[in-house]
Amino acid sequence: MRYELYYHPTVQGRGEFVRLALEEADADYVDVARKYGKAGVPAMMKIIEDKRAARPPFAPPFLKAGKLVIAQTANILFYLGPHLKLAPRDEASRLWLNQLQLTVTDLVVEIHDTHHPITSWLYYEEQRPAAKRRAKDFWRYRVPKFLGYFERVLQNNGGKYLVGPRLTYIDLSLFQIVEGLRYAFPKRMKRFERKIPGLIALHDRVAKRPRVKAYMASKRRIPFSQWGIYRYFKELDC
Amino acid sequence: MRYELYYHPTVQGRGEFVRLALEEADADYVDVARKYGKAGVPAMMKIIEDKRAARPPFAPPFLKAGKLVIAQTANILFYLGPHLKLAPRDEASRLWLNQLQLTVTDLVVEIHDTHHPITSWLYYEEQRPAAKRRAKDFWRYRVPKFLGYFERVLQNNGGKYLVGPRLTYIDLSLFQIVEGLRYAFPKRMKRFERKIPGLIALHDRVAKRPRVKAYMASKRRIPFSQWGIYRYFKELDC
Repeated sequence: MRYELYYHPTVQGRGEFVRLALEEADADYVDVARKYGKAGVPAMMKIIEDKRAARPPFAPPFLKAGKLVIAQTANILFYLGPHLKLAPRDEASRLWLNQLQLTVTDLVVEIHDTHHPITSWLYYEEQRPAAKRRAKDFWRYRVPKFLGYFERVLQNNGGKYLVGPRLTYIDLSLFQIVEGLRYAFPKRMKRFERKIPGLIALHDRVAKRPRVKAYMASKRRIPFSQWGIYRYFKELDC
Repeated sequence: MRYELYYHPTVQGRGEFVRLALEEADADYVDVARKYGKAGVPAMMKIIEDKRAARPPFAPPFLKAGKLVIAQTANILFYLGPHLKLAPRDEASRLWLNQLQLTVTDLVVEIHDTHHPITSWLYYEEQRPAAKRRAKDFWRYRVPKFLGYFERVLQNNGGKYLVGPRLTYIDLSLFQIVEGLRYAFPKRMKRFERKIPGLIALHDRVAKRPRVKAYMASKRRIPFSQWGIYRYFKELDC
């Protein structure tokens, strides 16, 4: 089946967790808003704004898979997992994998909010003191809690993958989390990485997988920027 | 099966979405941290902090169902849905229901952040100006977007339930969202309700269901308070 992924064409954002899964699985997919240039974003907005749709997405990313239109990153991955052979098939393991992915979802909100804690309707520069306080607490309390948790899960599963004996989509998502934190907080992340040796080794193994490596070197991988979830501000990274 | 729900004993919080489903279904369950008094919270923390657990929860709420330990509110409901007859059984509808529940998850974070936008490690009183700005944008942009979306989904499904021809757990969750917004923002919500007549009618129908009604009148329903997701501050409600 040819999948259609709908997401903002200029940022990695939440869409990247889906892109990584599709790429690793060598799935047949179209990144609609990128492929069709100026026509892509209106195509995406038309689906979101269709007032008569029975099951409209609230926001991108969403995936068209045949007649299905599936939104919410973790939900898309829950659906794709078995089809892409990036999830175990038994119910208990799928729920466990979904639970971990939803914890990534929570972490992503908190990463974003380090640079826009007060509101997304003010520029970063208009909320810099609040961002500094938020980033400080994020690194003091939240990063150790989240990444410490994933490190523990990884180690308790033998150290190679998070769930079961094979790569699943949560491994790809944690690769992306490490990439994003390195971009947004290079200094802080450098200091912190010694506390999560398993996750860093997992990141490095994922980076070397042939399809991920090819994807990362291609134009399909959108560069990090000052838009989206991960943004670099020197004063937040101290 | 007797379910065990683990959640903070003094707030509705995220656990309430699960409690409402268990109550409406008349399920056999124990609210562990409440039932066992002082011993309940340590029992919960022991599971979270078990360093050797293969599949530990990151945070409450979590549910024990036989040998399964399931965390993340939407994941718990995804599992419980078919067992409690609060979800359709076909895959496409379950994904759609999950998608809607994950949108409630997103909304819940934003409701909480109206009173603690900068960080949870400062008191409300230490971040009041930021909270005022956040609450203003929340009501200007986010509430209309979220609740307008759910209203549209409800109306496009015939107006009685969100998904399919019967009550599902998303209807109970939206009942709780209306309850919470009425508590935290009575004035703003009163003005806004005329824009979501379908959701308000749904709320009222859910409130009249015999088991929900009995639950709401019981001591099992924890009152709203100044702790948890929904908090009332006069200056945020203007």
